[in-house]
Amino acid sequence: MTVRAGILGATGAVGQRLIQLLDPHPDFEIAALTASGDSAGKQYRDAAKWRINMQIPDDVAEMTVGETSPDAVPDDLDIIFSSLPSSVGAAVEPEFCEEGYVVSSNSSNARTDPDVPLTVPEVNADHIDLIEVQRDERGWDGALVKNPNCSTITMVPPLAALDEAFGLERVTVSTLQAVSGAGYSGVTSMEIIDNAIPHIGGEEEKMETESRKLLGTFDGAEVSWHDARVDASCNRIPTLDGHLENVWTDLAESATAAEAEAAMEEYPSLDLPSSPDQLIHVFDDPSRPQPRLDRDRENGMAIATGGLQETEGGLQFNCLAHNTMRGAAGASILNGELLLENGYL
Amino acid sequence: MTVRAGILGATGAVGQRLIQLLDPHPDFEIAALTASGDSAGKQYRDAAKWRINMQIPDDVAEMTVGETSPDAVPDDLDIIFSSLPSSVGAAVEPEFCEEGYVVSSNSSNARTDPDVPLTVPEVNADHIDLIEVQRDERGWDGALVKNPNCSTITMVPPLAALDEAFGLERVTVSTLQAVSGAGYSGVTSMEIIDNAIPHIGGEEEKMETESRKLLGTFDGAEVSWHDARVDASCNRIPTLDGHLENVWTDLAESATAAEAEAAMEEYPSLDLPSSPDQLIHVFDDPSRPQPRLDRDRENGMAIATGGLQETEGGLQFNCLAHNTMRGAAGASILNGELLLENGYL
Amino acid sequence: MTVRAGILGATGAVGQRLIQLLDPHPDFEIAALTASGDSAGKQYRDAAKWRINMQIPDDVAEMTVGETSPDAVPDDLDIIFSSLPSSVGAAVEPEFCEEGYVVSSNSSNARTDPDVPLTVPEVNADHIDLIEVQRDERGWDGALVKNPNCSTITMVPPLAALDEAFGLERVTVSTLQAVSGAGYSGVTSMEIIDNAIPHIGGEEEKMETESRKLLGTFDGAEVSWHDARVDASCNRIPTLDGHLENVWTDLAESATAAEAEAAMEEYPSLDLPSSPDQLIHVFDDPSRPQPRLDRDRENGMAIATGGLQETEGGLQFNCLAHNTMRGAAGASILNGELLLENGYL
Amino acid sequence: MTVRAGILGATGAVGQRLIQLLDPHPDFEIAALTASGDSAGKQYRDAAKWRINMQIPDDVAEMTVGETSPDAVPDDLDIIFSSLPSSVGAAVEPEFCEEGYVVSSNSSNARTDPDVPLTVPEVNADHIDLIEVQRDERGWDGALVKNPNCSTITMVPPLAALDEAFGLERVTVSTLQAVSGAGYSGVTSMEIIDNAIPHIGGEEEKMETESRKLLGTFDGAEVSWHDARVDASCNRIPTLDGHLENVWTDLAESATAAEAEAAMEEYPSLDLPSSPDQLIHVFDDPSRPQPRLDRDRENGMAIATGGLQETEGGLQFNCLAHNTMRGAAGASILNGELLLENGYL
Repeated sequence: MTVRAGILGATGAVGQRLIQLLDPHPDFEIAALTASGDSAGKQYRDAAKWRINMQIPDDVAEMTVGETSPDAVPDDLDIIFSSLPSSVGAAVEPEFCEEGYVVSSNSSNARTDPDVPLTVPEVNADHIDLIEVQRDERGWDGALVKNPNCSTITMVPPLAALDEAFGLERVTVSTLQAVSGAGYSGVTSMEIIDNAIPHIGGEEEKMETESRKLLGTFDGAEVSWHDARVDASCNRIPTLDGHLENVWTDLAESATAAEAEAAMEEYPSLDLPSSPDQLIHVFDDPSRPQPRLDRDRENGMAIATGGLQETEGGLQFNCLAHNTMRGAAGASILNGELLLENGYL
Repeated sequence: MTVRAGILGATGAVGQRLIQLLDPHPDFEIAALTASGDSAGKQYRDAAKWRINMQIPDDVAEMTVGETSPDAVPDDLDIIFSSLPSSVGAAVEPEFCEEGYVVSSNSSNARTDPDVPLTVPEVNADHIDLIEVQRDERGWDGALVKNPNCSTITMVPPLAALDEAFGLERVTVSTLQAVSGAGYSGVTSMEIIDNAIPHIGGEEEKMETESRKLLGTFDGAEVSWHDARVDASCNRIPTLDGHLENVWTDLAESATAAEAEAAMEEYPSLDLPSSPDQLIHVFDDPSRPQPRLDRDRENGMAIATGGLQETEGGLQFNCLAHNTMRGAAGASILNGELLLENGYL
Repeated sequence: MTVRAGILGATGAVGQRLIQLLDPHPDFEIAALTASGDSAGKQYRDAAKWRINMQIPDDVAEMTVGETSPDAVPDDLDIIFSSLPSSVGAAVEPEFCEEGYVVSSNSSNARTDPDVPLTVPEVNADHIDLIEVQRDERGWDGALVKNPNCSTITMVPPLAALDEAFGLERVTVSTLQAVSGAGYSGVTSMEIIDNAIPHIGGEEEKMETESRKLLGTFDGAEVSWHDARVDASCNRIPTLDGHLENVWTDLAESATAAEAEAAMEEYPSLDLPSSPDQLIHVFDDPSRPQPRLDRDRENGMAIATGGLQETEGGLQFNCLAHNTMRGAAGASILNGELLLENGYL
Repeated sequence: MTVRAGILGATGAVGQRLIQLLDPHPDFEIAALTASGDSAGKQYRDAAKWRINMQIPDDVAEMTVGETSPDAVPDDLDIIFSSLPSSVGAAVEPEFCEEGYVVSSNSSNARTDPDVPLTVPEVNADHIDLIEVQRDERGWDGALVKNPNCSTITMVPPLAALDEAFGLERVTVSTLQAVSGAGYSGVTSMEIIDNAIPHIGGEEEKMETESRKLLGTFDGAEVSWHDARVDASCNRIPTLDGHLENVWTDLAESATAAEAEAAMEEYPSLDLPSSPDQLIHVFDDPSRPQPRLDRDRENGMAIATGGLQETEGGLQFNCLAHNTMRGAAGASILNGELLLENGYL
């Protein structure tokens, strides 16, 4: 049985990655594409400024882009992947859910709403059942599920591994983020060549809140956020893809670097089609992971860590993930696979 | 009275900056240049691969480069600026000091030796008199003075301002460092284009030790290091000049962002020729400072900070300095000016 | 006598360079700034996203930005520098000229109009008197003078030197252009990092036509374009400032590389305030000129050439100029200085 | 039957690409790796600074690197791929050939020797039989076959297509070359960030001579070089992989852009395992091909062209190829496949 999928915001940087990942997907089939007003009505080939170093799949290239509205997509879509600007997402996603569509969204709106599951399947798959609460409260036939921000996803799996093994008390994180995280026109070349920008609007707060919700516990009724303190500082650097992060943790129990490495490497992945074989790859070489060399591991879906060092009361490490694959398009698709496995599609 | 200056390691990236800054200097005059064996005997124009976007000063271009040995430089040099690889510096600098030369060195060897002054004049000028202890112990007529690592200099002035006003207890710092910090051939283009490297050998330790020595107190006999805990993580990014750093501090007394800003802006500069008018420039715009836009402030000798935010028990901020100006060549020259003012030349 | 100057399009990349060059100018004084609707009414500090690594001059920062209309600027402006998008320039510049303003424009509209002087003062200062023809034909009290495209300016002085000495018959040119030539948001970072773009809309045609008009002769009534064949290919590369060009020429008379070098080095500059001391700097080192190292020569107003080689029937060379200084803002100001010297202000 | 292959210079940038391409190869098997003295004796994993964004194949990682000498490799190698610095290649390759090894070399030595086949299989496969002449003259049991320089390979297929259809008389070419073409440490980051270098030592001459040999005719005894005039200018830009070139041609017969496009698209590929399905991909979009977007077409083995325009007496176009795949490692492997098909292995 093939799951028919629509993509909202299909022409953007994440939309293009959704197409790249869904085109060869074993279970999902691209059945509808939408974009903003200017693009609607055009063939995808003409509507999108395609920036990925593969060619647009032929059948997708010839699809007609529709408007981003429940009326403009086929009724028989089984799932909708949304990668809209957050203001648009906030306005439009609930309309789709009301009409009965199940939406797996990468947009940043509603991520911390109490009745919206925010999931990274390998970390908190059980939160998906928050959908029952959501449907009760909102009266929807559809559902809205979110994946977190790309910079949050990068650090959460290794933090989850440490939390489970040693108890997480405090996190301080500095990010070196790629330009693709801001979308196709988000960072101009004059801003970033021979430069770095020590601020990404709203990003620090996202890391501080979303990580605590993801690491929280769901009791069937609500998610209790993790009470670790999280301080983040977010930087943009002249790199195309791949967010690199320096992380310091204070831990409840002492951990050697070797114990931490074991906890990370043994942290389980899932059997979902897009899950990596090994979720967290740990490097012994302290100069790794590096964005250009390591972002594409396991089709861009692995997390890589390195530089593990014991500190007073905790542990320091670096981590990396492909921000538009693991951190965005792949994250939404993984959530879609989780929804399918749990009978929500 | 003009002070006659020699430059050890004059062809390197920092050596070139020493020439750029000394050529128009009011008190110092370039009187000798040395480099490694291959370059010795050549005119500077031919020996150096000049990489600065101004032309080599004519008189310097025509100077003959000598070997890096006390025998090969004029006897009447009043000061020697050293920018040698640390292994060479460790071997050669003491030879110069024994021969009576006063050496202001940017090389990383000996920085944490108990009897070697490590100074940033605006922060700990009084440490310079450790020279007396050094001369007693080593029997030198000359003297060896060090400036810290470029990444350390960048954060120490704002940390000193906070320490004086609120008491510094803990520092966590993540750096985004420019390629020029590794010297002319230190980072290949294939390593760094579309990439970042989360490790710089030895750099974390330098930041953790040198900062505590700089912020320490000198009682006339020895320097007691500051007891703040310092954790550093150092990254190389595709930027030419200017180190940007994210800093988190735990403070003994609570400080608002406004109080911290005042403490930084009012932290005094000196009247030395190369001191900036204002030592620390504080930005309200959280997206500043940025390397390309802000590294050249006050001839590359100012420190810029921004993004000041209160945290639980402390304060978070970003800081920036030009790594080969304020962080290396300018730092050595400032130390030379301090030596001159204090009668050591 | 200070000349009161207005700047149309003052917030853009070239507008910022106009401010940088006019602020310390001996003859011109910034008396008015305009920008598009969104910026009008704001202080310049708030209206402009300043990208130059110096601070906005204090007095300019506090000026109020006006609308780009003859009604919205002071009556007593002596000259107007225009750096508008060409479609806006085409609509608005004639309105200013009709109202009696003398406009020195960098916008690409009208450059090849028969009655519009297109000048690079060191090359074809005599074309400025085409203003008389223009005033006759258009009935203007004001006047419209243009400088050419940045990529054209870069090659025209060395071509003029060769033409004068050896007779120019054919030009083939390939450009490597910096991102600032496209304006602040013209090239996104995702387009250009680890990439190059072999096409710049309209640029090839500008080089092919404007160069022939500049090298043409003015007989007091009209400009006869030079009849050399010019073929251009224009590329964008990941460089901030400075256009580098490979040029092949077929010449009427044979020229050795040494003779060509002499012709270039001896090609006269002018005594205008912004003219470089030497117009064309010739490098013997074939790896120069390079954008980062050589774009700032003589305050960004010199042309640098190198790699001169004899070919069958001609000569090959490379040339470089700072595209927003010599190639845009500085070019407009030089034209303003020429207008002043010739009594048009 | 598996062909046992050795790789000379296996740790370099091209050596790594050889491993990437040979590891999954249907006919060849990596049986020996050599490198310079420092690396000999180490496991490949430790000897190479691996820079490709895939992991080293496990079996290769564990191979021991040998010295680059006929004595140090197994006797039963069927083919040797050489990617040595040219001075080393000139000394060592003949030693292997004398010992009976067949060497497919990417090194630049000996490429224009009259009895050395220089081949791009899709263009001049018949030249391979120059081996017979070589064996006669040199008394070798082995053989030495060369592929051309990366910048030459990029333009030769489209030039061959035009030559066959319309007769090639003159070529002018300007290159924008990626840093990987200079090897792992060939271009430092300080040289190339925010910069371009208008000179690559020896490269212009290689393009001018090798292209004429490749397009020449082999009569069974000697290769008569094509008599087209070729002028080249070579530039290095801040791009990782992929050489982009602007080409102007004078043609014997007039050609429309459409006819030229047809000639290129219909130019035949071969059935060798590494040949692309279509050799030359022609873009209608004048802003393509671009290095980052188009270098990986057909596993990096296709040539992409675009911007076809008629000129007076000829045609202008742009072309692109992956310099370390199609332009180096892939080129040597294709030659190896040609040798196999022609019974030389």
